[in-house]
This record gives sequence, C-alpha cells and structure tokens, in this order.
Amino acid sequence: MVKQINEVMPHIAFGGDYNPEQWNEQVWIEDAKLMQEAGVNLVSVAIFSWSVLELEEGKFDFNWLDKVLDILHSHGIGVALATATASPPAWLSKRYPEVLAVKENGVPYQVGSRQHYSPNSKRYRYAVKQLVKEMASRYQDHPALKMWHINNEYGCHLAECYSSESLEAFREWLKQRYATVDNLNDKWGGTNFWSQRYNDWDEIQFPANLPTFYNPSQKLDYKRFMNNSIFELYKIEKEILREVTPDVPVFTNFMYEFKPLNYFEWAKDMDLVTWDSYPDPREDKPFRHAMHHDLMRSLKNGQPFYLMEQVTSHVNWRDINLTKKPGEMRLWSYSTVARGGDGVMYFQWRQGRAGAEKFHGAMVPHSSNTNNRTYQEVKQLGNELKQLDGVVGSSSKAKVAIVFDWENWWAVELEGKPHNKLSYLDQVYKYYQVFYEKNIAVDFVEPTGDLSNYQLVVAPMLYMIKNGQEKYLEDFAKQGGTLVVSFFSGISDEQDHIHLGGYPAPLRSLLGLTVEEFAPMADEEKNTIVANGEKYQVDTWADIIKLEGAKAIATYKENWYENSPAVTIHRYGKGSTIYIGTNPSNDYLDQLFNGILQQVEIESPLKAPKNVEIVERIKEDKTYVFILNHNNDPVIIDLKEGITYQDCLNNRQMTEQITVKNTDVAILAYEN
Amino acid sequence: MVKQINEVMPHIAFGGDYNPEQWNEQVWIEDAKLMQEAGVNLVSVAIFSWSVLELEEGKFDFNWLDKVLDILHSHGIGVALATATASPPAWLSKRYPEVLAVKENGVPYQVGSRQHYSPNSKRYRYAVKQLVKEMASRYQDHPALKMWHINNEYGCHLAECYSSESLEAFREWLKQRYATVDNLNDKWGGTNFWSQRYNDWDEIQFPANLPTFYNPSQKLDYKRFMNNSIFELYKIEKEILREVTPDVPVFTNFMYEFKPLNYFEWAKDMDLVTWDSYPDPREDKPFRHAMHHDLMRSLKNGQPFYLMEQVTSHVNWRDINLTKKPGEMRLWSYSTVARGGDGVMYFQWRQGRAGAEKFHGAMVPHSSNTNNRTYQEVKQLGNELKQLDGVVGSSSKAKVAIVFDWENWWAVELEGKPHNKLSYLDQVYKYYQVFYEKNIAVDFVEPTGDLSNYQLVVAPMLYMIKNGQEKYLEDFAKQGGTLVVSFFSGISDEQDHIHLGGYPAPLRSLLGLTVEEFAPMADEEKNTIVANGEKYQVDTWADIIKLEGAKAIATYKENWYENSPAVTIHRYGKGSTIYIGTNPSNDYLDQLFNGILQQVEIESPLKAPKNVEIVERIKEDKTYVFILNHNNDPVIIDLKEGITYQDCLNNRQMTEQITVKNTDVAILAYEN
Amino acid sequence: MVKQINEVMPHIAFGGDYNPEQWNEQVWIEDAKLMQEAGVNLVSVAIFSWSVLELEEGKFDFNWLDKVLDILHSHGIGVALATATASPPAWLSKRYPEVLAVKENGVPYQVGSRQHYSPNSKRYRYAVKQLVKEMASRYQDHPALKMWHINNEYGCHLAECYSSESLEAFREWLKQRYATVDNLNDKWGGTNFWSQRYNDWDEIQFPANLPTFYNPSQKLDYKRFMNNSIFELYKIEKEILREVTPDVPVFTNFMYEFKPLNYFEWAKDMDLVTWDSYPDPREDKPFRHAMHHDLMRSLKNGQPFYLMEQVTSHVNWRDINLTKKPGEMRLWSYSTVARGGDGVMYFQWRQGRAGAEKFHGAMVPHSSNTNNRTYQEVKQLGNELKQLDGVVGSSSKAKVAIVFDWENWWAVELEGKPHNKLSYLDQVYKYYQVFYEKNIAVDFVEPTGDLSNYQLVVAPMLYMIKNGQEKYLEDFAKQGGTLVVSFFSGISDEQDHIHLGGYPAPLRSLLGLTVEEFAPMADEEKNTIVANGEKYQVDTWADIIKLEGAKAIATYKENWYENSPAVTIHRYGKGSTIYIGTNPSNDYLDQLFNGILQQVEIESPLKAPKNVEIVERIKEDKTYVFILNHNNDPVIIDLKEGITYQDCLNNRQMTEQITVKNTDVAILAYEN
Repeated sequence: MVKQINEVMPHIAFGGDYNPEQWNEQVWIEDAKLMQEAGVNLVSVAIFSWSVLELEEGKFDFNWLDKVLDILHSHGIGVALATATASPPAWLSKRYPEVLAVKENGVPYQVGSRQHYSPNSKRYRYAVKQLVKEMASRYQDHPALKMWHINNEYGCHLAECYSSESLEAFREWLKQRYATVDNLNDKWGGTNFWSQRYNDWDEIQFPANLPTFYNPSQKLDYKRFMNNSIFELYKIEKEILREVTPDVPVFTNFMYEFKPLNYFEWAKDMDLVTWDSYPDPREDKPFRHAMHHDLMRSLKNGQPFYLMEQVTSHVNWRDINLTKKPGEMRLWSYSTVARGGDGVMYFQWRQGRAGAEKFHGAMVPHSSNTNNRTYQEVKQLGNELKQLDGVVGSSSKAKVAIVFDWENWWAVELEGKPHNKLSYLDQVYKYYQVFYEKNIAVDFVEPTGDLSNYQLVVAPMLYMIKNGQEKYLEDFAKQGGTLVVSFFSGISDEQDHIHLGGYPAPLRSLLGLTVEEFAPMADEEKNTIVANGEKYQVDTWADIIKLEGAKAIATYKENWYENSPAVTIHRYGKGSTIYIGTNPSNDYLDQLFNGILQQVEIESPLKAPKNVEIVERIKEDKTYVFILNHNNDPVIIDLKEGITYQDCLNNRQMTEQITVKNTDVAILAYEN
Repeated sequence: MVKQINEVMPHIAFGGDYNPEQWNEQVWIEDAKLMQEAGVNLVSVAIFSWSVLELEEGKFDFNWLDKVLDILHSHGIGVALATATASPPAWLSKRYPEVLAVKENGVPYQVGSRQHYSPNSKRYRYAVKQLVKEMASRYQDHPALKMWHINNEYGCHLAECYSSESLEAFREWLKQRYATVDNLNDKWGGTNFWSQRYNDWDEIQFPANLPTFYNPSQKLDYKRFMNNSIFELYKIEKEILREVTPDVPVFTNFMYEFKPLNYFEWAKDMDLVTWDSYPDPREDKPFRHAMHHDLMRSLKNGQPFYLMEQVTSHVNWRDINLTKKPGEMRLWSYSTVARGGDGVMYFQWRQGRAGAEKFHGAMVPHSSNTNNRTYQEVKQLGNELKQLDGVVGSSSKAKVAIVFDWENWWAVELEGKPHNKLSYLDQVYKYYQVFYEKNIAVDFVEPTGDLSNYQLVVAPMLYMIKNGQEKYLEDFAKQGGTLVVSFFSGISDEQDHIHLGGYPAPLRSLLGLTVEEFAPMADEEKNTIVANGEKYQVDTWADIIKLEGAKAIATYKENWYENSPAVTIHRYGKGSTIYIGTNPSNDYLDQLFNGILQQVEIESPLKAPKNVEIVERIKEDKTYVFILNHNNDPVIIDLKEGITYQDCLNNRQMTEQITVKNTDVAILAYEN
Repeated sequence: MVKQINEVMPHIAFGGDYNPEQWNEQVWIEDAKLMQEAGVNLVSVAIFSWSVLELEEGKFDFNWLDKVLDILHSHGIGVALATATASPPAWLSKRYPEVLAVKENGVPYQVGSRQHYSPNSKRYRYAVKQLVKEMASRYQDHPALKMWHINNEYGCHLAECYSSESLEAFREWLKQRYATVDNLNDKWGGTNFWSQRYNDWDEIQFPANLPTFYNPSQKLDYKRFMNNSIFELYKIEKEILREVTPDVPVFTNFMYEFKPLNYFEWAKDMDLVTWDSYPDPREDKPFRHAMHHDLMRSLKNGQPFYLMEQVTSHVNWRDINLTKKPGEMRLWSYSTVARGGDGVMYFQWRQGRAGAEKFHGAMVPHSSNTNNRTYQEVKQLGNELKQLDGVVGSSSKAKVAIVFDWENWWAVELEGKPHNKLSYLDQVYKYYQVFYEKNIAVDFVEPTGDLSNYQLVVAPMLYMIKNGQEKYLEDFAKQGGTLVVSFFSGISDEQDHIHLGGYPAPLRSLLGLTVEEFAPMADEEKNTIVANGEKYQVDTWADIIKLEGAKAIATYKENWYENSPAVTIHRYGKGSTIYIGTNPSNDYLDQLFNGILQQVEIESPLKAPKNVEIVERIKEDKTYVFILNHNNDPVIIDLKEGITYQDCLNNRQMTEQITVKNTDVAILAYEN
C-alpha cells in the first residue's frame, strides 16, 4: 500500500533538481553540506542521467549514483529519484532510428537536445521498461528514496508525432474507440462532408499536410490520441515501480497552462500532483501564478501539491529574462504554500557550467560563492519553512468553483469558428481574476465533477458539452446553486458536432433562452451594455438572445441589436442561472459578482487593500491565514475580532491588527 | 447545340449549394418544401459527393442521388449538377498515392480535407473521366438537370504542385512551348545569367528550393504551366459532358481576386461565368465587390453571370467573421443583379452539423427554425426576385474600360523589382474606385481586347506588354480615344525581359516621353505634385521623366527631381494619352478624371449623393436603373425629366423623384 | 613570388563586374570603347560563366572568353579574372545530385538560381579543380590578366548544409579537433547535460531538427566547421592558381556584416582584401558604411583594399530599393578611398536585360543611352580618380582600436542567454559611432592582435575570452594603455563553457570587480545612471557589480540596485581599465570618451561641423586629408596653420580655409 506523502515527508519539502553527473565527487560532498545549511530536505536526482546509467544497450553503471545517494542520505537529504527516461541516449536512436519522433513534414527529430523520442515507439517503450526495472530494483531499499519522479515534464517541446508507427497507433486507437469504420464515419461528421468517407482503417491519415481546413472531429481525436499515448508512457513506468516498491509514492511533474495533456485524467494516476512554475516577472500581477496553484490543487480534490520547479533569479529561455527582485522569490514561494503547496523546489541546485541551461538561475550560482543574494534568499526561506510543519496536509475550503475542461480547451480552439481568436484560457483567467482580487477562494472542477460543496459555479465558454453532461449543471442549480455561464457555451458535443435545435441546445431550458445568432466583433470594435442604468464596455462577441423564461439584466446599447439582451438571469429549481452573452469589461464583472457573492453570502477571510493576497489553509483543528503583501509599501490588516492568532514565522501572538511589510508575508494560525 | 442560359433559366436564378448526403431522406423532403417557400429555383448538387457516388473503384451508387433529383424536380427546383470531382475519395489516394499533390518541400498533401489531388496526375485525370462519364450518362435525361457544375473553385487552396509527375509535365509543356532547349535558354534570359544554361530538358527543375532569387522567366512559365494544367482538367470534363449532353450549358465556379488562373482565357470555354463572392463586412466600402462583378461580367464580353456562392450571415474561415447586418445581404445581392448577375446563389442551403464548415452561414441555420432573421431575409429576397424576369439577359453599355491582364499580374509581382511591395490589384482598385464613386460604368478588357466601343481606356501598371501588344493601345488613341497609363508600364516583354532602348520602349512614341530613372520611395516617404496650382500628395514611386513631345500637367515639388514632370499629356492621332508617373492620392485622380470625363462627355445615369450606387442594365427596348442606398439614412434621387419609370419592386410609376430608404434598393425601368 | 597589388595596378582601380556572355560580340566592342571613355581600368570577368565555359563534363569552350579578353586588353583594360566556380551548371547536379546542398529539413537545393552546391561535396570540389586548372593554364600568360577573382561572395545565401556528405565531414572535422569521443564529450559540456553523452562519432548529428534548445558547444562547432569547409574551397582554388601563376595576386570578394565567415582568418590567405558594399540609402547616417571600410582595411593590418562591388543607383533585392541622389554615389566612393580603398568597382558594367538582377543598377543602364545621370556620374568619377595615383598604397595610422571577433559574434548570439535580443554588431556599432562622429581614426583588431601601436582599446561585449586571451588585454593595460570593456564580457571560454568563480573570471583582476548578477531589462524598461552629477538613460542590461579595487564613475539611480556601480575605473599597471556594466545612451558615451580621448591626447585631424567626415591616408612622405561633406549645405573648414595643402582634385594650393560644397569632397595633400 502506497504511503501518504506527509508520512514520507512530514515537512514542507524544500530543495531542487540535482544533476551530480555534471560535477565530480568532491563537489558532491560540498553540495551536501551546503544543502544542509540551506535547509534542503529533498532533491530530484537522475532526471537526465540515462546516458550515464545505461552506457550501452543493457550495460548499466550505477556506481556513481549509489555514491550520490549515500552522500545525500548521510546528510539527511531525501531523494525524489527520477527514472531517467526523459532523454534517451544517442546510442538508442543510432541503433533504433524508429524511436525518433517525426515532425509534420516527415523530418525526424534528432538527438542533441532532449526528449526526441516518439511516444508511440514500441522500441522506446521497451527500453524504458528495461531501465525502470533496473532503477527500481537497484534503489528499492535505499534509505534516501522518498518518492519516484517519473520521466520529466511529459509532452514539453513535443506533444505530437507524425511517424509511421504513430500513424499505426492512431489507427489502432481509433479502432478501439469506434469499432467499425462506419461508426467512425458517422462520428467524424455525419458521413460525407467534403467526400471524407473511409472504407478502411488504412485509409485514415493524420490531420496534417492538408490543402485547407482539417476535419475538426479528426483533429480532436488526434489530440485525445496523443494525450493517451503519452499517458500510457507514464502508466508503463508507474506499473513497474508500483510492483517493485508498492509503498513508494510516484508522480511526474506537470507544467503550467499546458494544453496537450488532460491533467484531470492524469492526476487520478498520481500519488502527488507536482508542477513546474515559471511566471514571467514582466507580468506584474501574480494572479495567473495563483490560478495555476489553485488548478493544481484541484486536480486531486484539494490534496496538497508540490511546486517541483521554480527559479531563484531568472530563466534563460525567454527572449528577455528578467530577474526576481529581492524578496519576490520568497513571497511567491509563500503564495505556493498558501494555495496548497507542501513542497517548494527549484530547478536547479547548482548552476550548470555548460549546455543549453547554463544561464538558468540556480540555488548556488556560477560564482560558487555563498555570499550572494540568491543563495542567501534560498537559505533564509529553507530555514523559515521548517516552522511550517503544522501546515503540511491542510487544505482549502472554497465555496466557488470554476469549471475547467481540457477537452473543451482543445475543441473550442480548433479552427473554423465564428471568431478564431478566442482563447479559452483568457476567458478562464478573466473570471478567475474577479475572485482573486476579492480574495475569494476558488476551486476548479471538471464538467462531471462533484458540485455539491459549492454555492457558486462559473462555466466560462464551455463550448463542448458532451451528451448528458448538462445534468451536472442542472442538478447544481436545482438544488439551490447559482450558476454563471458565458458566451459560446453548450454548442458542440463530444465529437465537435453541433447540438442542433437552437443554441445552446443542452442548456436552453437551464438558462431560459435561445441564442439566435452569433455576432462576432472586429478587433477594434466595441459595444456598450447597460445594466442598472450604468454603462459598461464589451467587445469580441455578441450573442443575439431570444428570452424563453430568462430576464435580461443587461442589454446592448449599440448596433442593429440595440436593446436586445446581453446578460440574463433565470430561476431554475431552487437556484438560478446567469448567462453572459458577450465579453464584458472587468468592471462589469466586478459589480455583477459583488451582487452574486452578497446573495450567496461568500466573503473574503479578511479585508485587505489592493495587491494583498489573503488565503486560508484549513486543518481539522486549525486555520492558517496567509497574508501576502505584493505592494512596495507596508500594509495594515485588521484581524477578526475576538481571535488570538499565532504568528507562525515570528513566534508571537497577534490580535486586532497586523502590519505586513512590503513584499512580505504573515502566516497567522488560529484554533477552529 | 448548347442552349442559352436564359433559355434554360428564364428567371433570376435563386438557390444555393445543396449537400443532401449530409442528411437523411426525411430532411430532403422538408428541404424541398422550404425551398419552394423561399423562392428557390436552382440548387447545386453533388459537389463533394465522389466518395458516396463511387464507393470503391468502379463501384457506383446513384440511388440516393436519383431520389434527391426526383424530389427536387417534383418541387419545381432545377439542378446545377456537379460532377463531384472536387474532392477525391480516400480509396483513390490509398491505392494510387501518385494522385496526391506535393508541396514545395516534397511532402505530399493528404486526404482528410479536400482538393488534395495533383492537377498533373494522370491517374486523377483517368478517375475523373470515369466518374464524369457515369454522371453524364446517368443524368443526361433527368428533367431536373439544368446545367453542369464542373468540379469546384479550381485552384482554391492548391494551385501549385511539385510532384515528380508535375515536373515531367512541366518539362513536356516547355518542350511544346519552346521546341528546342536552345530556344528555351534564349527565352529564359538571354542565355547565361548566373550560369543557368541547360543542355537538356531533363536538367530543368521547378523554380523552387533555390538558395536565392529564382529566374523570373522560369517562374512566370511555371505559373502559366499550372494555369494550363488546371485548365486542362476543366476541359477534360467539359469535353465528356458536351459529347453526352450537347445542349446542356457547363461552367465551373470562379473565385474573386484569384491570381493563379487566367479567367479571361478560361471564360472562352465556359457557357456561363459563375463565381463565389465573400466580401468581408469589416471593409465597409463595397467597391471591391462591385469591381469583381464588373470584372466577371467582362470575362465574356458583358454576358450576364451567376453569383454562385455568397453567404447569408457570416463565413467561418476568416480570423474574425463579422455577420451581415439586417438588409445588407439583400442590398449586396441587388448590387450583383445590377452589375450583370442573372443568378443569386448561396453556399449553402442547410447549415452543416459537423465538419470544417459547420459555422459557415446558410439559408437554413442550425436551429432549423424558419422564424429567424436569416431565413426570413432569404425568403423575402427569393420571392422579390421573381419580379425581375425582365432583367434577365440585359447588359451594360460602359464607355470606359480598364485594361486587366492576369499575365501582367503574375509578372509585375515577381521578386527583384525596384519596389517589391507593389500590388497590381491595389493599382487597379485605385483607378476603378474613381469611376465607382462617380457611378460611371466600367468594363474590363484584356490588353488585346476590342477597344472600339470605349472612349476612355485606363491601363494601370501594365508592366508587361508583349511584343506588338502596344498596337491595340496605339490604334485606340489614333482613332480618337483617350488613354491613361500609370507608372511601371511597358517595361517587360512576354518573357519578362526588358524592352531595351529607354523605358517604356513600346509606349515611348505613344506617350511622348522617356522614363529615365525609377525613384521608389520608402514606406514613410511622401512627395508632392503640383497641378493647376494645386498641391497633391504622392508616394511609393516617382518616375524621372524626359519629355519627348508630351507636356507636363503635374510636376514634383520636392526632392532632387523637383520641378520635373510627374504627369504628362500627349496628343496622339485623333486622341490623346496621359501618363501618370507616380502614385497620386485619390483627390488628385478625382480632379484629373473629372476633367477627362467632361472632355469625353461621359456622365453618371443619375446624380446621387455619396454611397449611393447607380447602375444600369440595358435591353433592346428597356433600361433598368438600379439605385442602391448603402447609407444608414434615406436618400432622395432626382429622376430624369420627361421619363416615366416603372418601379419594378413596388409595381408603381415614378417621375421626378424617388426616395430610397437606408440599406434599400429601387429598380426603375423605362422604355429606351 | 606574388606581385604587390600596386605593382599590378598603380592607379585607383575603377570598373566593375562584366558579364559579356549575356551580350553579343558587337556589344563587347562598344563596351570596351565606353569603358575607355569612362576611365575604367579593371573589370571582373567570368564570375558566372561556368555553364558556357564547360559545356559538358570535360568539354571546354574558351573561344568567346579569349575574344573578350583580347578586346579588353586592346582597349587598355585589365581583368580580374574569375574562376567561374560560383554557380555550377545544370549538367553537374543532374549527373551528380550529391553536389547539391541540403536544407535543415532534408530538402536539397536545386539548380535554377545560383550557388546551390554543398561546400562539402567531394564531387563539387573535384569539378572545381578541373575548371580552375583549365582557366589557369589557358590564361596564365594573357596580358589582360591582372589578378584572380576566386568564386564569388562565398557563403552568400547558403552558409549551412545538412547533406549526408556534410554530416560525414562534420564528424571528420570533430575527430580532427577532439581526437577522442571522450574529449568531445568533455568539450561539449562537461559530460552529461540532458543525457547527451556520445559513445561513437557516428552517433553525432547536426545541431538541427531538435525538439528544443541545441547544445551551444555543438552549435558553435558547427559554425566553425562550416566556416572551415567554405574556407577549404577557397584554398583549393588558390593553391592551383598559385602553382600555375605564382606572381598573380588572388582574392575572393567579401561581404559586409557577414557573420558566417571569419574574415580575419581568411584574410591571411588573401593577397588583397576586396568586398562588396550595398548600404541602404534609407539609413541616412553613413557611419556603418565607414565602419565596414575600417574593418576591411584592418583585416590585413591596414593594407589597402578594393571595393569590388557597389551600385550606381539602386539595387533590386530589398523590399524597397531607394536610388542614390545626385552626388551621393561619388561621395560614398571617396569615403571608400579615404578609408583605405585603392579600388572602386561596381556590380555591374551593363544592366542585364533578363534574369533575377535585371533591375539592379549598373554603369550603363537599360536605355544604353550614355546621356543619363548614372553614366555621367560614373564617367566623372572614373576620370577624376586618375588624379589620385599618389594615394595608392597609403594607409591609416589609428591610435584607437576596437576588438572584433567573429567567434565571439557566433557565441554571444547563440540562444539561451539571459537576454536573447542582444546584437554583437549593434554593440560594436555603438562604440564605433562615438569615434566616427568625432573623426577619430579607428582600427579593428582580433582579441589576439598586436595592440602595441594603440593608446586606447575598446572591447564591446567580448563574451567569449578563450583561455589565456585575457593576457593580450592585460599586457596592453600594464604598458600604459587605456582599455574599455562593456557588459557581458569575459563570460565563456572557447567551448562556450562558463569561466567559473565569479563573472567575468578572466577579467576580474584586470577590471577590479566582480559582476554578481545580471539584471536584463524588458524592452520598454529604462534606468538612469548618474555620472559627475549628470543623469543619463540606460537600457537593456544592468550588471550588479561588486567593486574589488575599481572605483565607480557612474551609479544606477533606480530599481532595487539603486546606487550600485554601473561604470567603473581601475588602475592597472601603467594604464587603466574602464568597465561599462550597462547599455548607456549615446550622450553618456560621448562625454565619457571626450574625457578619455583628452587624457590620451588623441584628436581629430581637422575640426569639422556635423556630418563632415575627416579622414587621413598617410604615405612615407605625404599625408592626404579627405574632407567629405554629407550635408545638404556647403561647409567651411579651417585648415592647420602653417601648412600649404595641395588640392588634389582641383590642382591648386590651399591654406587657412577650404569651402566644400554640399555632397562634395576635397582631397588635400601635404608633406609630412
């Protein structure tokens, strides 16, 4: 039986990727001492070590890694041991060129960078199994082993492959899904659009190298297929590891805003959600960063996650790589913990001397000098976090949920839409930001997720509603919930076929309306809506709405659809539904949700000025309030009357008020 | 003997593409009834039906199509029957991969979209012949068959192919054109530029995958070759159809602004010019739309054309697809009729449920509800048009012609010019717009066209003048015509070789000048010209002109060529020639042509305020005046004194004045 | 023993590329006469003549070329005879497809343009040898032969090849460089970054078609390899020519700002540096043009160079090709001579009638009329230059040097840097411009060049300092020199591995500081520095500097590093070093270098207003002062007291003052 993470690691995990194969043994010992000093308790080892672990096919050398793990263990540092499969060695693709992934134009990727393998290569899968078995049996009993880190950032750089082996696999996957070619013809668009009927599985090609628009059903299935192929890779490794080490937790590290992989699906097979976060300091609002944390926490129903990679100073893969200002790395790390992170890790421990990532920041920079800002900030944070053992395992209790669906993301951004510059993520950000700025906790849920714990659910641009999925939303409203749906929702089914009978057919009775026409707006075009006598700007899109029970709460002011409804409300069961048929300015959403939140009686844990994040983590008996001041000036926060708070980082009691310095954090605990 | 179109269809044709293979039989019957209601009298059927007509090689199934045609006929709806060759079925390229067109990088296009065939594939041509023969013999006597719709939008998406079969065909075409390699060497650039001499036909490659600039003569020939290859496809089908059904008119549908195909050449082999028009509602001036109509009407010397496709609401293939406002679709449809259209058709009848075009507007939208703006506007128009039988077959009588030449378009936009951002079409638009805004009818003519009916001929940027072609312009001027030529004309011959001896050598005596130098201007650069004491802005280009008989009527005001001639006039025979050696602002052209038009006594049929189109169609005994109000307010138009007009759409008599509402049209007829 | 250039050509060379194969014999005779009239004394012949010299493999025809050379010689015109290898004939790649270079995507380049050969093709090299041997033996004794013009603009269009033969050659080159695979592993990045260890040479691929970032050491070596492959081509030809005609100088023509070829390395094997210059008239400041001249002169330690190609009017390969104004071509030609040019040549003599370059300006334009501005300006210049025989062979005596290094250029612009929009050339331009505007002569030197003649050396962004190279800079400062180094210098070694131990490790003691952090700035971000109480704007980059002996002479005013040093000065030996840790505005550099120049007592030859270039060329006994007025108004220049100048172009004596008209030049000589 696999152990709980907080059993394995009862502290906030702190550390980073460690690539000892780039250094000699003397450095390893120095590293271990420095790690101790910096409060490191966990490092990820061997992520890119395949070529030095399996020197030739079947010829393994684990001596160096044995030594590294021994040294780490003797200094009290645990290891998230990687399976080393992320970057195959040159000898593999030399001997078996079929392991190479292939571009859309038929050109194979080459060795010389990383992750050049085809997810559908049987030979790659075979080689992975051999390596993982060796790793697992070698280190199953090593005391440093805390958890398994499978592969690395699956799909990064390369989430599509057009090799002949991938084509065979695609056809096989379709055969499993559709059973007969006739069924596939039907599911790929009625039967006969543009003469695309197939007689045989062998006639099916990739949705690639086409003279013009692809078949959207086919493209969507290709995305599903590639997600599945990569997921299979993960499961192959997991199965071996589980068999050899049934009690050791396993995971792979996710990425933020990563469209190709359906992380809700993946998370079900992970013992711990971990992810890599690289917000760009050029975006000064940290709300995207916060949203990613909330999404990651939501993938496993609120179970704490690890931030597996972040950078101390600056990355090197953007065009211009700004460095974090003093205190910023620490503050953002506490935002991670506040939103459910039980691990704060970096890429990487020691900055590389050579290679593509040598200018990527690290915990120990090129100078090797520890008397520098970067290392000092790391050391301060590592030692501070030791005071937060109590937080480990606690979670959030949001009453607001945003529906998020990877398959919808894929479908709504396929080509051939009325408006082809719509971004699903931007719509989700827009609604998330409203709650972020009000310090209202938000969870993310799948369209088929359990909504019973929420009072308010927002579904931005839920274009694809699979047959029957509307029931989840209907039940929520029936039982008294408040549901907000935004434009271009409920249009297509699982195959990206239109729900006929008037948009949005599966939601018409729930919302009490029909959308008669879509009126997209040009880039520079604007319109105005009027709500409660106030005017607000809208852009991008206007639905022409016919009310069928709903009531308009905002109407258009301009253009030929002047005075027609833009935003509507509808009583449904014990609850109500609101439909937003356009893309309103933030100030409209601000006032709209102020009203809604008042109605459903949801408010922020503490009142706070702008750019101050207030987040709670809750345990059986205790609540931890995180106050994060993103401003350049100190702020004074009123605490709740009658409560005595424990200031966790300063070991003191607080009542009434607390002053939080600029770019600083306070963590206050109180008994529930 | 092929029948006249207005014999086959004595009404304004009204209808659209109809794709019954996407629906079941019950829908077909419903469709036929709705079509009747909407005034539909013609539909195009089977455009993309190959895969459901020829299920496997040689195995045909016409039962469903028989039924569809029977149903349509029984509801009084005629059929433009497509030959179904536009999109080959998957089994064809599976069995014969050589039918696939190939990209410049050697990658074949794939099945999964449409039109992936190589125009030079012998196997594709063979398969086409089999299918067309079957179609023709099956339906030769079907009473619904009104005309044959060959293939679809030839060249759309794919007008170049780089397959080995295309290379062989290219060499063969060159052999036909040049007979000997020595002759080709000569015609491709003297002999020896950049060591490009050929010993043998087999050494010739595509003008593709080159380290730097191509040979312009070779590139131009490649464009001619591809135009010819695609034209051969059309003629193969036409020949079969003509043999089986000698009296049924045939056509294919053209596209607007389509550079790869020389439509003047094609039109000679068409019984009816038809084309597909998708103006972007983001461009508010409809003058481009009007120009396309005038060009299409001109392709067959004024014979009426059909608008074969337009959209009711919005397309789905632009980045942002704006929808037409109430009345706009109707108004633009009348502009079609006004400018020579005897058919007003749509893509498509019923909006698709799936596939790449499911968000493309249609006559019957997704809701299937007929109580919506789209269907109501269609129905109104369809029934109105029934009153215009009298218009059918009438034509325009323009006294102004603009020279338009596809080969010039190809040549002048080849790389390596003094100014490489010149657009031929933009220059033509510029001159067309002057007449459009004055409501002066314009025809388009080939450089070798008959000019005897015109008083004013404009040749914008006629860069390529083939040897001897200048005679047509000379004769026109000699006999009293007024000719206007704009900069960068008369520079190259048929092979894109320079006419030596001073620019523009073939036009020097006609224009009375030499262009000594080209002085292109940078993007942000401007100059000023002075004409009759007034100043006007010019940009893009300045010719440095030496007068040799001509007289300057405008001179430059700035830069080192200050005071040198910019625009000139020259007496030639009984006529005169005007040369515009720069790119003047519209206000200059406006006043220049005001003067010219006054001189040649050409004026608008009726005086009209801005944004009101006045267009005439003329029959033996009657003249139809179309008054189209593109404004958002009503306009009052003074009619000609002493004439009693018949208001065709309102069945009343009019004299003196007529009020036309915003976005509305009046059609007035009077006896000649 | 090879002759000196000024022995072969004791005049300023004047002429151009001559392509007689595009014309017939009658034109050749007319050309020779016109050349005489225009003062032409040298033409380059046969550059693209391979296909008409070797008609089939081994079948040569030199008759036409014999005639051309005879005609030229009989008119007193010398010939720089090309080896004709720049563009292989079609029959070569038809018979031996392996001569074709290959793109990164595996697609071979094709015949039909020029220079489509792979530099690593053995067959191309073999064919080149055959042709060059024939040429050399045919014309070794022809009296018109003055010098050999090898190939043409090596690397232009195509400086990378991905053919299988190139891959073999790359592996062979690596074997020569690194001897063992273990050594290569070490030199390519420690050993094991991203699992990139190699077991065998055969496993190595191009740094191409990778899923993400390449290995920078590998990419750098690929650049070195391609430079070397192309250099080998040159040396193959040179060796044959030297053997057959040991006294005839040889060269190839360089290009301006050409990154792929290390011209410092190449120049050592050239008897004469020649280059092709095409400044864009849209850039009105001619300082880049001047810098290219100074760089070309510096390639062979100040030995005069030839400008082998320029255009009379306008080129045709930019998007918009502005033409040179009256006088501009002449003025810029004199700038060439002023900065060390002993040859002023054009592409080309007679403007082509056909082909990709037909709109490229020439000495004789399309009209063939000599009564035009272009030819008249050519003729004036050609005859004026005859008065400058005395200048031939003279050189410059700069006291300022700028370090310039092709390998640094390659390395610093590889991806994965802290700021990935840095341009090495822009940094060099920035510092060059300071001296250009002060009319201070500048040489360029390699990092290992002899600095003993200079008082001030500037090293802009010298990112790569190979092991030990810092000694050259240290010695310079020790012996009293003033050294200026700008940000991001001294970071990496020859393999692009970091110099560990604190940036910039090899320069820390020389500069007296450590750079603790890099703080790149976003595009729109600015900062301010304060120096001597004045404020100046900086952008792009800020070093966070820790002083270790140096003194701050400017500090930052904003951001978290406020008040920390931005620019520093350090005494070192008898000299001093200045470090500029940011990208300052030009006004800061202006005042900084005013101070430095005053200190080291370097000043302009004559005082001059803005946009007037003052340049000296010096011979044993005489100094020639060139005064070039780029203004649109005349300027008056004070001459040095007590000197009587000879006005070379006007044959008069001058003292005290001289007036130089707008866009005009004065050349004044005086005894040293």
